[in-house]
Amino acid sequence: MLKKERLFAPGPTALLPQAQAAMAAMHWHHRTAEFRKLLTGTRERLQRFLGTKNEVMLLAASGSGAMEAAVVNGLSPQDRVLVLTAGKFGERWEQLAKAYGCAVESVKLPYGESFGPQHVQGKVSAHTAAVLVQATESSTGVRHDIEGIARAARQANPEVLILVDGITGIGTSPLEIDAWDLDFVIGGSQKAVMIQPGLAYLSVSERAWRAMEKSRAPRFYFDLRRERKSQAQGETAFTPATGLVAALHAALEYIEANGGRAGLVANAELLARATRAAAAALGLRRFGGGTPAGALTALEAPAGLDSGEIVKGLRQKFGSVIANGQGEMKGKIFRVAHLGYYDFSDTLALLGQLELVLVQAGKLEKAKLGAGVRAAQTLWLEAAAGQGAEA
Amino acid sequence: MLKKERLFAPGPTALLPQAQAAMAAMHWHHRTAEFRKLLTGTRERLQRFLGTKNEVMLLAASGSGAMEAAVVNGLSPQDRVLVLTAGKFGERWEQLAKAYGCAVESVKLPYGESFGPQHVQGKVSAHTAAVLVQATESSTGVRHDIEGIARAARQANPEVLILVDGITGIGTSPLEIDAWDLDFVIGGSQKAVMIQPGLAYLSVSERAWRAMEKSRAPRFYFDLRRERKSQAQGETAFTPATGLVAALHAALEYIEANGGRAGLVANAELLARATRAAAAALGLRRFGGGTPAGALTALEAPAGLDSGEIVKGLRQKFGSVIANGQGEMKGKIFRVAHLGYYDFSDTLALLGQLELVLVQAGKLEKAKLGAGVRAAQTLWLEAAAGQGAEA
Repeated sequence: MLKKERLFAPGPTALLPQAQAAMAAMHWHHRTAEFRKLLTGTRERLQRFLGTKNEVMLLAASGSGAMEAAVVNGLSPQDRVLVLTAGKFGERWEQLAKAYGCAVESVKLPYGESFGPQHVQGKVSAHTAAVLVQATESSTGVRHDIEGIARAARQANPEVLILVDGITGIGTSPLEIDAWDLDFVIGGSQKAVMIQPGLAYLSVSERAWRAMEKSRAPRFYFDLRRERKSQAQGETAFTPATGLVAALHAALEYIEANGGRAGLVANAELLARATRAAAAALGLRRFGGGTPAGALTALEAPAGLDSGEIVKGLRQKFGSVIANGQGEMKGKIFRVAHLGYYDFSDTLALLGQLELVLVQAGKLEKAKLGAGVRAAQTLWLEAAAGQGAEA
Repeated sequence: MLKKERLFAPGPTALLPQAQAAMAAMHWHHRTAEFRKLLTGTRERLQRFLGTKNEVMLLAASGSGAMEAAVVNGLSPQDRVLVLTAGKFGERWEQLAKAYGCAVESVKLPYGESFGPQHVQGKVSAHTAAVLVQATESSTGVRHDIEGIARAARQANPEVLILVDGITGIGTSPLEIDAWDLDFVIGGSQKAVMIQPGLAYLSVSERAWRAMEKSRAPRFYFDLRRERKSQAQGETAFTPATGLVAALHAALEYIEANGGRAGLVANAELLARATRAAAAALGLRRFGGGTPAGALTALEAPAGLDSGEIVKGLRQKFGSVIANGQGEMKGKIFRVAHLGYYDFSDTLALLGQLELVLVQAGKLEKAKLGAGVRAAQTLWLEAAAGQGAEA
């Protein structure tokens, strides 16, 4: 039997074919009128996609590079920063801020929980330089209440910088940069925007640009003030990842034609709800008590089965790549992505594969085959009826 | 008339089609056995290509990011470093070392000149932490005597680190990492290795790994110790630029089948000599008094003609992209690349285009048409005869 390789990991994810083609066709020099127009157009499309008036900067790096850019441009050694961490990427913020000498105070929750305004109240003062948080924690499949966190932090200190790692959260759950007054919001190419890894972007508020004037952290490759001057001219301070810029431009064109970011979020949320409904029908528990993200669903392996067996089974029997748990969650949970270029049929197929793997592992009765798929189908019918009623 | 777009700038350069195809086909998750094998195989091929026993690290960044990695891993604030600068990229080393608090002493030569051992003698002491230099200075088309510089520096201080920006020099002029005992040697994907920008690599000596243990510069995204642990497992500390890794693997396969780095260097040197012979026949002066590089040739525009007119003419009339001078050299010189995926026929065509542009600009007599091409052809015949004699 043929087995098509399908990526269902929360990044890198399924690739948009026309964006791949645009990347492969790219051969322009980056200091030409054509490329300047492409770079400027891509940044404008990114602004529209993100729904922000803030400038959006492109960097040749993976998302962690843009996280570093936010820290080294916005902060200084000894700055007091509050990190909200309930997963592997929260820990990345901690490591990063410590690497640049910030005085880090961490608010920790168990893996799988979500942060809200109550977790910053009383923690942010006039001496707090910044709050660092993920929109969606990819390691656990939950999202944090960025709107509430930002409002509570801002009430305590109007000048505090809010740094949001939106790498997995952008285009998968609501995230309103301007309405929520977020200072640095970071995204990566290999997530909802459907292209390969290697290009990062971040939106930068006016407050953040002002903060850079007094920041004393050393920086060169990720110096955003220098990038701002270059990118205003359609260039970059250092050689850009030209192919990925072309790919991103093509992907944003596709996304705009399909309802923009709101359309992507609605799509991811539908697939996430379908996956949760299927899991419930199959007796699989969602991991953690936090607010489920649209980007991915983290499920616990049935008792007595290592989640790695599910990952391996899907891979070997069907060619589908899902993610195991990370760190202490390895072997206990598995994670299925919905972010970016996935449609309902992809999800149906994966659920059908999952049922078969569970049956062969002795963790699902044969009589239950199709139960997860049916739950997802039922949800699709309701969604379709809802859309019909609206039309 | 059709006009094919041809890149003759010293990066990004002409792309190898099969590497583009490999990039477009890449859709693997980076934490899979397949990708680990690809990453490990690419690093091994890079080692062979560079001819070094040193470990070679890959980074999702442009070449300047790997220059930063060398500085922040090998050096500490207040370290005394000697920067040899005679062009725009020498100035980049200066800016970078200063950004991270090093005590920079610069040895400056006019643009277009080359450094040799005499420029470091008496400048390196037991207190000098590092010497920073370009193998080839792309802004002026000359190469520096890295072998002599390294030997002189090492005689004065056996532990001094030698940081070589080989972004343009690798695969275009001789560069022997192990024999010359070079500590950090940096390369970029968009140069001799024939693929798009966005992937950087650097070789790291044992002395450099030891130096990292005491370096106090802050670092996170470019932390090479962390990368070393990950890359030993076929992974990277942060999401890799998967498509560019696949492209690099394919390009190195092509390069190995065509004589490896030595074959590339011989090819670039032949094209460079052909271009210089053609320039002489056309009355064009090579820029500067330094040692000409194999990577590119910098020529002065004829008196009374802005070099931008030559750049524009080649672009508009024939679709060829060459480079203007940078900074103070803009308008005075133009630069033609030979690095990577160029063959003799590409060079012949460009020389023919250049003659036509000069005739239309009134800077070459019509009777001289073909004189540059003929000089290049004559050189080709001599090279072919030489190869015949060797065979």
